[in-house]
Amino acid sequence: MSPESVTVYGMSTSGNCHKVRLLLEQLGRRFDWVEVDSANGATRTAEYLSKNPNGKVPMLARADGGILVESNAILCWLAEGTSFLPSDAWQRAQALSWLFFEQYSHEPYIAVARFIRGWTPLDSPRRTDLPRLLERGGQALVVMEKHLQDAAWFTGPDYGVADIALFAYTHCADDGGFDLSTYPRITDWLARVRATQAFVPMPGVSDDVAARLASS
Amino acid sequence: MSPESVTVYGMSTSGNCHKVRLLLEQLGRRFDWVEVDSANGATRTAEYLSKNPNGKVPMLARADGGILVESNAILCWLAEGTSFLPSDAWQRAQALSWLFFEQYSHEPYIAVARFIRGWTPLDSPRRTDLPRLLERGGQALVVMEKHLQDAAWFTGPDYGVADIALFAYTHCADDGGFDLSTYPRITDWLARVRATQAFVPMPGVSDDVAARLASS
Repeated sequence: MSPESVTVYGMSTSGNCHKVRLLLEQLGRRFDWVEVDSANGATRTAEYLSKNPNGKVPMLARADGGILVESNAILCWLAEGTSFLPSDAWQRAQALSWLFFEQYSHEPYIAVARFIRGWTPLDSPRRTDLPRLLERGGQALVVMEKHLQDAAWFTGPDYGVADIALFAYTHCADDGGFDLSTYPRITDWLARVRATQAFVPMPGVSDDVAARLASS
Repeated sequence: MSPESVTVYGMSTSGNCHKVRLLLEQLGRRFDWVEVDSANGATRTAEYLSKNPNGKVPMLARADGGILVESNAILCWLAEGTSFLPSDAWQRAQALSWLFFEQYSHEPYIAVARFIRGWTPLDSPRRTDLPRLLERGGQALVVMEKHLQDAAWFTGPDYGVADIALFAYTHCADDGGFDLSTYPRITDWLARVRATQAFVPMPGVSDDVAARLASS
C-alpha cells in the first residue's frame, strides 16, 4: 500500500517549506503544493488561522483533514519508518537534537538575516539587528563545522531529516551576509547533500528580492 | 532490567533544565544532577564546550559517556516507550509539533523576558526588548489557550512530554511580565500538570533574582 497523498501549504522560497518538498521528492511520495505568500500576510487570514492558529508555513494536510504544523515535526512524521529517520532510539534522539538546534540556534539568526536583507526595504529599522544575527548565526555555523570533523551527516550514519533541516537555510546563508567559503567542511557537506538521490534545489527568489540581496 | 542511571548537567532555576528533572522524577528513574551556573559562564569553559560545543544546558550524559543535548530531544529519548510519548505516529508528530512550537514561538519570548527581568541589571539595555517579547510571548499564550478549548493536554490524549516542555516557562510567565490570570484555560491546565503523579516544582530563584523580579 503506497502512503496517502498529502497537501503542503508553503512558500517555495522559504527554507522551512523547502525542507518538506525536498523530503517528499526524495521519498517519491505524491503531494500537492499550495503556494502561500507568507511574506505578504497570507498566513494571517481567518481561514488560514482556523487551520494553523500560529499563522506559519509550512502546514501539511492529510486527505482526512488532519493538520500537522512545524517543519521539523512534519519531516519526522514523513520519515517515520524510512532511512531518513534513524530507528535506533539514541541515534534518533541525536537527530532530534540537531532539529531543535536548527530551530533554536540556527534558523532565528541565519534565516532571519536572509529575510531582512531580501524581504525588507533597504532602509528598514530591522537592519540594525543584522550584526547580532551575523554573530549568533556564525556561532551556529562553527558548531556545525566542528561536528563535521568526525561525521559525514547530522542525522546519523546516513543522510536524513537533520541534514534536510540544516541544509534549508545553511545553503543560502550567503544571502544573509555569511561567508560560507570560510567553512570548508560545511561546504563539502552541502555538496554531499546536493548529490543525494532525487535532490531538488530550492526555487530562486523573485527579481525584486534578488535585487535587494545584491544591494544589501 | 531497570534503565541505566544518567547524569544531568543543568541550572535548577532554568525551565529548560527543570523539564528533564520533572520527567526523570515522574518516570521514577535514578539520576545524578550536576549544578551548572549557566547564568555566570559555566557553560563557556573549555571543558564544558568539549562536551557540548553549543554551550548550553541541559546536557545528559550516559554512564558510557554518550552525550545528548537540547532539552526537548532529551525528553523524547527518556520518554521513549512510556506513556509520556505517544506510540501512534501521527499523535507523536503532534507532540513533536508542540515541542518545536515551544522552542521557536514560546521560549525565545517568555523565557527570555523572565531572564532579562530577573538576571540582568535594572538598567540593562536588553530591557528595551521587553515590549516586543511581551507581544510575541502573548501570541504564543493565545495559541495555547485556543488549543485548550478542545483538549486537556498538549501531548495527546494523555499528559506527557509536550506538557512538560510547555509547563517549564508557562508556569513562571508572570516573572517575565505576562499576566496568566487572563488565560483561564492555561491556568486550569497548569493546575492539572501540578496534580500529576510525582510532580516536582521548579526550585525558587535566589534572593537577588527575586528582588530584581519584584522591582521590574
